[in-house]
Amino acid sequence: MTAVSKRRKKPAGASPGSVVYVGAEKTTPVTVSCIQYSADRYEAPRIVSPKECRPVPSPSGVAWYTIDGVHDVEILKTIGENFGLHPLVVEDISNTTQRPKLEGFDGYYFLATKMITYDPRSSKLKSEHVSVVFGQGFVLLFLQDPGDLFAPIRNRLEAGKGKIRESGSDYLTYALVDAIVDYYFHVLEDIGDRIEQLEDEVVSQPTARTLRTIHHVKRELISLRRSIWPMREVVNAMIRDESPLISKGVKIFLRDLYDHTVHVIDSVETMRDLITGTLDIYLSSVSNRLNEVMKVLTVMSSIFIPLTFIVGVYGMNFQYMPELTWRWGYPAVWLFMIALSFVLLALFKRKKWM
Amino acid sequence: MTAVSKRRKKPAGASPGSVVYVGAEKTTPVTVSCIQYSADRYEAPRIVSPKECRPVPSPSGVAWYTIDGVHDVEILKTIGENFGLHPLVVEDISNTTQRPKLEGFDGYYFLATKMITYDPRSSKLKSEHVSVVFGQGFVLLFLQDPGDLFAPIRNRLEAGKGKIRESGSDYLTYALVDAIVDYYFHVLEDIGDRIEQLEDEVVSQPTARTLRTIHHVKRELISLRRSIWPMREVVNAMIRDESPLISKGVKIFLRDLYDHTVHVIDSVETMRDLITGTLDIYLSSVSNRLNEVMKVLTVMSSIFIPLTFIVGVYGMNFQYMPELTWRWGYPAVWLFMIALSFVLLALFKRKKWM
Amino acid sequence: MTAVSKRRKKPAGASPGSVVYVGAEKTTPVTVSCIQYSADRYEAPRIVSPKECRPVPSPSGVAWYTIDGVHDVEILKTIGENFGLHPLVVEDISNTTQRPKLEGFDGYYFLATKMITYDPRSSKLKSEHVSVVFGQGFVLLFLQDPGDLFAPIRNRLEAGKGKIRESGSDYLTYALVDAIVDYYFHVLEDIGDRIEQLEDEVVSQPTARTLRTIHHVKRELISLRRSIWPMREVVNAMIRDESPLISKGVKIFLRDLYDHTVHVIDSVETMRDLITGTLDIYLSSVSNRLNEVMKVLTVMSSIFIPLTFIVGVYGMNFQYMPELTWRWGYPAVWLFMIALSFVLLALFKRKKWM
Amino acid sequence: MTAVSKRRKKPAGASPGSVVYVGAEKTTPVTVSCIQYSADRYEAPRIVSPKECRPVPSPSGVAWYTIDGVHDVEILKTIGENFGLHPLVVEDISNTTQRPKLEGFDGYYFLATKMITYDPRSSKLKSEHVSVVFGQGFVLLFLQDPGDLFAPIRNRLEAGKGKIRESGSDYLTYALVDAIVDYYFHVLEDIGDRIEQLEDEVVSQPTARTLRTIHHVKRELISLRRSIWPMREVVNAMIRDESPLISKGVKIFLRDLYDHTVHVIDSVETMRDLITGTLDIYLSSVSNRLNEVMKVLTVMSSIFIPLTFIVGVYGMNFQYMPELTWRWGYPAVWLFMIALSFVLLALFKRKKWM
Amino acid sequence: MTAVSKRRKKPAGASPGSVVYVGAEKTTPVTVSCIQYSADRYEAPRIVSPKECRPVPSPSGVAWYTIDGVHDVEILKTIGENFGLHPLVVEDISNTTQRPKLEGFDGYYFLATKMITYDPRSSKLKSEHVSVVFGQGFVLLFLQDPGDLFAPIRNRLEAGKGKIRESGSDYLTYALVDAIVDYYFHVLEDIGDRIEQLEDEVVSQPTARTLRTIHHVKRELISLRRSIWPMREVVNAMIRDESPLISKGVKIFLRDLYDHTVHVIDSVETMRDLITGTLDIYLSSVSNRLNEVMKVLTVMSSIFIPLTFIVGVYGMNFQYMPELTWRWGYPAVWLFMIALSFVLLALFKRKKWM
Repeated sequence: MTAVSKRRKKPAGASPGSVVYVGAEKTTPVTVSCIQYSADRYEAPRIVSPKECRPVPSPSGVAWYTIDGVHDVEILKTIGENFGLHPLVVEDISNTTQRPKLEGFDGYYFLATKMITYDPRSSKLKSEHVSVVFGQGFVLLFLQDPGDLFAPIRNRLEAGKGKIRESGSDYLTYALVDAIVDYYFHVLEDIGDRIEQLEDEVVSQPTARTLRTIHHVKRELISLRRSIWPMREVVNAMIRDESPLISKGVKIFLRDLYDHTVHVIDSVETMRDLITGTLDIYLSSVSNRLNEVMKVLTVMSSIFIPLTFIVGVYGMNFQYMPELTWRWGYPAVWLFMIALSFVLLALFKRKKWM
Repeated sequence: MTAVSKRRKKPAGASPGSVVYVGAEKTTPVTVSCIQYSADRYEAPRIVSPKECRPVPSPSGVAWYTIDGVHDVEILKTIGENFGLHPLVVEDISNTTQRPKLEGFDGYYFLATKMITYDPRSSKLKSEHVSVVFGQGFVLLFLQDPGDLFAPIRNRLEAGKGKIRESGSDYLTYALVDAIVDYYFHVLEDIGDRIEQLEDEVVSQPTARTLRTIHHVKRELISLRRSIWPMREVVNAMIRDESPLISKGVKIFLRDLYDHTVHVIDSVETMRDLITGTLDIYLSSVSNRLNEVMKVLTVMSSIFIPLTFIVGVYGMNFQYMPELTWRWGYPAVWLFMIALSFVLLALFKRKKWM
Repeated sequence: MTAVSKRRKKPAGASPGSVVYVGAEKTTPVTVSCIQYSADRYEAPRIVSPKECRPVPSPSGVAWYTIDGVHDVEILKTIGENFGLHPLVVEDISNTTQRPKLEGFDGYYFLATKMITYDPRSSKLKSEHVSVVFGQGFVLLFLQDPGDLFAPIRNRLEAGKGKIRESGSDYLTYALVDAIVDYYFHVLEDIGDRIEQLEDEVVSQPTARTLRTIHHVKRELISLRRSIWPMREVVNAMIRDESPLISKGVKIFLRDLYDHTVHVIDSVETMRDLITGTLDIYLSSVSNRLNEVMKVLTVMSSIFIPLTFIVGVYGMNFQYMPELTWRWGYPAVWLFMIALSFVLLALFKRKKWM
Repeated sequence: MTAVSKRRKKPAGASPGSVVYVGAEKTTPVTVSCIQYSADRYEAPRIVSPKECRPVPSPSGVAWYTIDGVHDVEILKTIGENFGLHPLVVEDISNTTQRPKLEGFDGYYFLATKMITYDPRSSKLKSEHVSVVFGQGFVLLFLQDPGDLFAPIRNRLEAGKGKIRESGSDYLTYALVDAIVDYYFHVLEDIGDRIEQLEDEVVSQPTARTLRTIHHVKRELISLRRSIWPMREVVNAMIRDESPLISKGVKIFLRDLYDHTVHVIDSVETMRDLITGTLDIYLSSVSNRLNEVMKVLTVMSSIFIPLTFIVGVYGMNFQYMPELTWRWGYPAVWLFMIALSFVLLALFKRKKWM
Repeated sequence: MTAVSKRRKKPAGASPGSVVYVGAEKTTPVTVSCIQYSADRYEAPRIVSPKECRPVPSPSGVAWYTIDGVHDVEILKTIGENFGLHPLVVEDISNTTQRPKLEGFDGYYFLATKMITYDPRSSKLKSEHVSVVFGQGFVLLFLQDPGDLFAPIRNRLEAGKGKIRESGSDYLTYALVDAIVDYYFHVLEDIGDRIEQLEDEVVSQPTARTLRTIHHVKRELISLRRSIWPMREVVNAMIRDESPLISKGVKIFLRDLYDHTVHVIDSVETMRDLITGTLDIYLSSVSNRLNEVMKVLTVMSSIFIPLTFIVGVYGMNFQYMPELTWRWGYPAVWLFMIALSFVLLALFKRKKWM
């Protein structure tokens, strides 16, 4: 998950609109692939050069360009010029710390989102910056890292199933964002499982590691929350939009997507409540254990301290101690001490300390 | 209660509108029953095939179809086609994790709610997904599990009492949702009783089990809250709706229903406050007990530690210890020790440690 | 105070508008009394039969009916029919768990409120359900229990002082609600006194009983808050209302009443803050006391444990222990032990443990 | 600071608009003083009788009446009649528990505020009820206690500096409220100093008194917050007002005043955050100290308990204990015990308990 | 960072609009420098006298005046008169405790912001009051302390890169505020790094110093939050403004700036959540350590206390103690004690206390 303190490499005071990549440094080459389709046509993905990534003159269908990598600033600038994008849009595409947002411009929309996936190497959540620019007949998809998350959409396009081939770039944008939001559910399931595990652990065997795990899950939920809240705004803004770029038919689907983002938010908030409850139980469990330990100490001390005093008394070396010479002095002391122990034990039992 | 991390079986990126059942797996057959009524007519429930579940050509009354089970995707699709439902609606009917919502379409409304009941087997809350689709002359009621919750409504229909026979599908929908919301009160009563019991328990005899019960009730309240909050939105949206499908007369009843949902929300929030207070008392009780135990330890130790030291002194084997040879040395030591004990006890009493 | 889990006797799924009394069971007879007045006339209260409780044909003044008891469903139904009340209104009058609300109907308003009084028998707060129905020339006041809270209003009517005789049913309604809200101040004063007492107690002598009292006051504040928040909405709705039933002159008084409800809410919230602060101090006080006890234990143990060890050394029975035969061995040990005690005491003093 | 539970002497159910003084009882006589000024004229303050306190027939300037005391109900009524004030306004003037509010009437505005000052006798905050009524050509200032807070305004009037002489009653009202809000800054500075002092104290030397001071400051902030929040509403309402009584030029000053009230609110909220943080540190400091004490006890006990056991062993009186007769038995035991101590000390050091 | 309780030197009740410097006392001379530029012209910064700081008669470009110091009241007054600024604006410029705000006047805007920088001397955050006044053809920048934060903007102006030379005073104002907001990111990075360090520290080695650092970071976040929240309002007000002084082209950049302020707010809130979590872990870690210490004490005490009692028994001096004369008495006692130790150890192990 992106650290909260991610370094923004752009120097403070730099010219706005200056395109600077601010994510981790990378040297992998950036490829641009293109899929063209319409209701009755589908061209399989092919690699194109950044220069070829430009609006199709008279689009009868949709051209979907995927740019897998935002660290090559020159390529972004070339594409930005081809499509006439505002310099701030190109800056936001390369800024991997950009919050989700929707911005409307003349002839196109810019949409920034966060994709959450599991990083198998570090077993941590990974937040990826995904930008979409869409207009009449084209969709530009900018990915921070290459990945195959959107394969099902390509398959649906190829198979020609569902509404996707007959619809325009607005529906494709919806399908892309829907796929991203669906991934949140996978991540939430995983976190939900870990919370259930933690709830068992805090009761049965709370350790310092449990506490760290609770805090770790809490951090992940804070990060998720931070990504999904603005997403809701984004989808809502698309629904309320009145430009012809988003058709009425697609808005029904966006309403459904909005519902999903609310569901995610709801789950995140519920999980935050649950993890807070788990922390409470953890602290109580730890304190209960201390309690139990203290009680044993008290009971043992409280019984043996008077007994030790008694045997100390008869260890004194006074010349005139009549008890020491009694025939039954020793057994009598034993009897007295045993009786005392029972009295004390009964007392503690009655006070429910045992 | 539905786990927060309920697995959504639908693969991420699947086509929207694809109908996939996501609840627990089931093999029980799904039955569709139909009741037809109007002001002067009532046909008792009869089982119909999914194909027969279709709009009545010229409805003079209301046809109420109950589909008890949403795990048979084919049946849902058939019914969806018969009534011309949007694919997303059919998807939401089969998605048992769907949040409560109201969506208006041309000619019909889709309403998703959560029914909360007690599962007698596990003595846990059970959240059931209930969907209602209503339009001119028909109501489709989709239940996750078969159940007889709505028997009183059938009885009222049969008896012809109240407004229900003269009213349309909007009133029946209201009656169904009202029955569901009424069940929340039953569940709340039960939780309220348990909270009162807990409040006694935390004061008289707090155990680790008490803490778990507190957390359990807290979880249930979080779940209830999650179900009922969107319900308020649903009812409010119905009241504010301006389509002819919901008549003005029914809106007076919906206003009353809205009031009930606010009442439920209010009770849930109050109970959350109370259970938090209970947790505070629990923690204080536990700490008070520790306190009491510590005080006894202190008092016993603080009295016997000096005494044990004194008897240790006279247990030393020095050749020249004048006290050991005194005639009244032994009784004098006893007197001194008894006096010391009383002084210490008085001191502790004054400091209110006893 | 009404328990949160008050049993709603109405079976779930019962017909809406069915009038069912849901409070504690009662058998006392319900009486209906009537006061009629106008600017120049005042008829003393007289008992009327439920059938006589009906709109006066051509009202020149106001007819104020008080129905003291809502457990006799038949009487409520009769009156409801006489005044043409909606069945839901009659249901809400008999439902003592009804939240405060205002509902406008053709020709009359329905207003549900909660009256808070002290129950002298249980020294607990008692929440009473009070409903008012008012229209042109009549006010119906439904009380859960007979009581003389509104005597000052009757006196003002009789004396003809103030605006009350010249004004209509809207002003009388305002006067009734104002009297109810004024009672909240009395209850708040009492709670405020108890909080001040608690604040002294937690510092001087915190006991387990103190904790229970804190929790009890917290509960009462939660209940008060629950009653007064919707009251604000009710008064606000009356001010914003544009029907001729509420005159402009009365709205100035309602604005003042609104101010009072805000004042009550404000005080309740402030008291919640204070009681939370009291709980914090309680917990700290308890922990401070434990701290003090622990310190004494530590000091005593830490001084006597080494001393006891020393005397133990010279209690050993080795044949070759040169010290035992020294002439000044015994006094030397005493000197050493006294010196050690002072060193340890000085050390603890410097560390501020004493 | 006014207690939250201040007794409202007015009996519940009393006629609204009945003027009853509800503050602490007082017998000091109430004086009314009058200042008249216009752009080119200034009459020094003179004492007038309540009857003379009436609108000036054709005002060319402003008449500023100061009534220092609201406990003489008759005087308030007389003035109220002279200026044609609504009975509720006169009631609110005498009600010292009234929350800040602004109410517009025909021809005049009523403004209730709270002045916060330090009471030198009790070194506590004192909240004073200040009411202002202003209209064309007059300002009535009602003070709960006589005081010289507004002397700088009189001086500015006399000196004729600034805009004040040329402006109307709206500017004078602004100047009065501005002076009151400025006093909040003085009080906040003082509280801020005390918080800084507390922050040092909780770290260096936390005592039970520190806790009480924290709670005391918290209470004061709660009271301040309660007074200043509605003040913001009041100023905002004056800015948004569209009557000719508040001129556009004065609104620029009111905007500035609004800014000041927001600044006060902001500071109060920040201080609440800080004082809560201080409480956290206090609790941690106390627990840290307990921790340290516990550690010393553990280390001493854990070292001396085994040693005491060892010397006890050789204090046993068995006839056949070979060690007792060894030549080097005694030194060997000493050596062993010293070695054991060092081993234990090293162990504790490694575990970082020392 | 400005203390919350910063002393406002202006006496309460002073005339509004009176210009009083309220920051730390300073004697450094205030310099005014001027940069003039248009699309095709750029004049390097030159020092001008306060009198020369006045609107350019017929501005073809922009005159940017930087006043580095607000403690010389006379200079501020002179400039204020030259540009016809409202007295309240000049007062707010000199008031270094002024909250960020935007105020529109005829012909110019006044904008107050807070610049956050690191003070290298005290390694603390420093909040600096920065005011901007801009109108047709001029920008006045008032700095509390001289500094070179805006050098990059001067460089861009000189180089003629970007839009800055072709744009008006609105764009320059945007660029100045953008540079200030960018500095927040630097500060946040630094705080983020410290939080990560703290998160490691609380787990590995929590000390009292850790707690103080946590509190210190918390304070800094509270201060940051206080500065940035009103900033969002300021930028939002500029976007929504409809005067010709802010052009449509600049509003696109302001939207981007708004986005940045939301990002800062978001990060501050997230960090507050994280630091709270860190505090929780700290407290748990400390309590865990105490727990561990207690367990060792219990185990050692619980084993040695019975053993010491046993050896005490055989240290008694009774004449008739048969065991003392047994041949194998001494080894038998040793065996018994060793066995007892193992039994107790096994018991503690089973209870998971070790």
